[in-house]
Amino acid sequence: MATVVAFDVNETLSDMRHLAPRLEKVGAPAQLFEAWFASTLRDGFALTAAGGYANFAGVASSALYALLLGVETLTCTLDEAAAYVLAGIGELPLHPDVEPAFARLHADGLRLVTLTNGSAATTDELLHRGGVAQYVEQCFSVEEVRRWKPAPEAYRYAAERCGVNREDMTLVAVHPWDTDGAKRAGLGAAWINRRGVSFPEIFRQPDIIASDLCEFAGSVSPHP
Amino acid sequence: MATVVAFDVNETLSDMRHLAPRLEKVGAPAQLFEAWFASTLRDGFALTAAGGYANFAGVASSALYALLLGVETLTCTLDEAAAYVLAGIGELPLHPDVEPAFARLHADGLRLVTLTNGSAATTDELLHRGGVAQYVEQCFSVEEVRRWKPAPEAYRYAAERCGVNREDMTLVAVHPWDTDGAKRAGLGAAWINRRGVSFPEIFRQPDIIASDLCEFAGSVSPHP
Repeated sequence: MATVVAFDVNETLSDMRHLAPRLEKVGAPAQLFEAWFASTLRDGFALTAAGGYANFAGVASSALYALLLGVETLTCTLDEAAAYVLAGIGELPLHPDVEPAFARLHADGLRLVTLTNGSAATTDELLHRGGVAQYVEQCFSVEEVRRWKPAPEAYRYAAERCGVNREDMTLVAVHPWDTDGAKRAGLGAAWINRRGVSFPEIFRQPDIIASDLCEFAGSVSPHP
Repeated sequence: MATVVAFDVNETLSDMRHLAPRLEKVGAPAQLFEAWFASTLRDGFALTAAGGYANFAGVASSALYALLLGVETLTCTLDEAAAYVLAGIGELPLHPDVEPAFARLHADGLRLVTLTNGSAATTDELLHRGGVAQYVEQCFSVEEVRRWKPAPEAYRYAAERCGVNREDMTLVAVHPWDTDGAKRAGLGAAWINRRGVSFPEIFRQPDIIASDLCEFAGSVSPHP
């Protein structure tokens, strides 16, 4: 079993559905959230595939503007709407399974870190706000390696910074593209399937599938 | 000026908004289209960034299933809904500016090709259905190089197959991530801005910006 568990942050730890009411508040449909988050990742991955880089806040803002431009029912200016929605990223709560899962994994002697395409500072604030920062050794961001996950450099950077071999780190994420990237980079991978759907065939199968973070923690615990 | 003009296909030539009514017909919101196309590209780009590959039809189907699973108002089974929506890809019309632009560029002696993340066969059918196949020398697909645009290998492959230097090929697309990738790969790039919005700052500026394909054709024509 791995000695370091690296958690993805957006949607895996933070509950991003809380951004949907902010979209509605400015007159946009709540369903725009799906398109926004997908197009943010699309553009960040595109830059990575092409050999470029921009930080998460810049890409998320760019993608949001592009979508809000098509909304004719905004109740304020475009700049006000975008600023209000983007501010919500800094106020997201943790999913309720994070605290008990982190406590158990930490008690079991595992090293916990985070690895995000977002910023390490935003992750650190999220963990403090949710009262779980004491369980986490370090927050890593692709900002330092300037290659977004799922490029292999991002995962290998986290393993190197932890001083462990790739196979001694397990990435935990709700996104199949992320567990796929971790596997291709030589790490272990656990997919958290909160929605209870099938794992997509286009991606490499993860080593562990769990319905939430507590089930994951139980599956790797030496104490049944 | 470039001697070969390489056109992106999805949305640049084909009018994909015609898929929205198909979503409505199966009980899904029309706005799901944006999330679907964005998440298709997200997953295709993710595989490319991670060093993997799956073809467009497989990724588009996978992304559509993931989104339709969250729709509680479907009027038929999930499989029927997905099949009906996916079948629409094979029946898309061309945008109305394609025919006059292709005719003019061809009359001006430029070589026209297409370069898509989709399949070359679907492109060929689209061009025949729209009555413009006679203007197009060849339809290229990333299926042959197994790297999706905007990875540099995709653009360089098209230039090599045409027997021209990279700087003698101009990529034409409505997507900023595509013109950005072409520029980074050493090609020229023209961005078609049908919606009249600003070019996103996170991407490299294209060489040409035109409001539609006819304006683009006029801007590169030796005959004013």
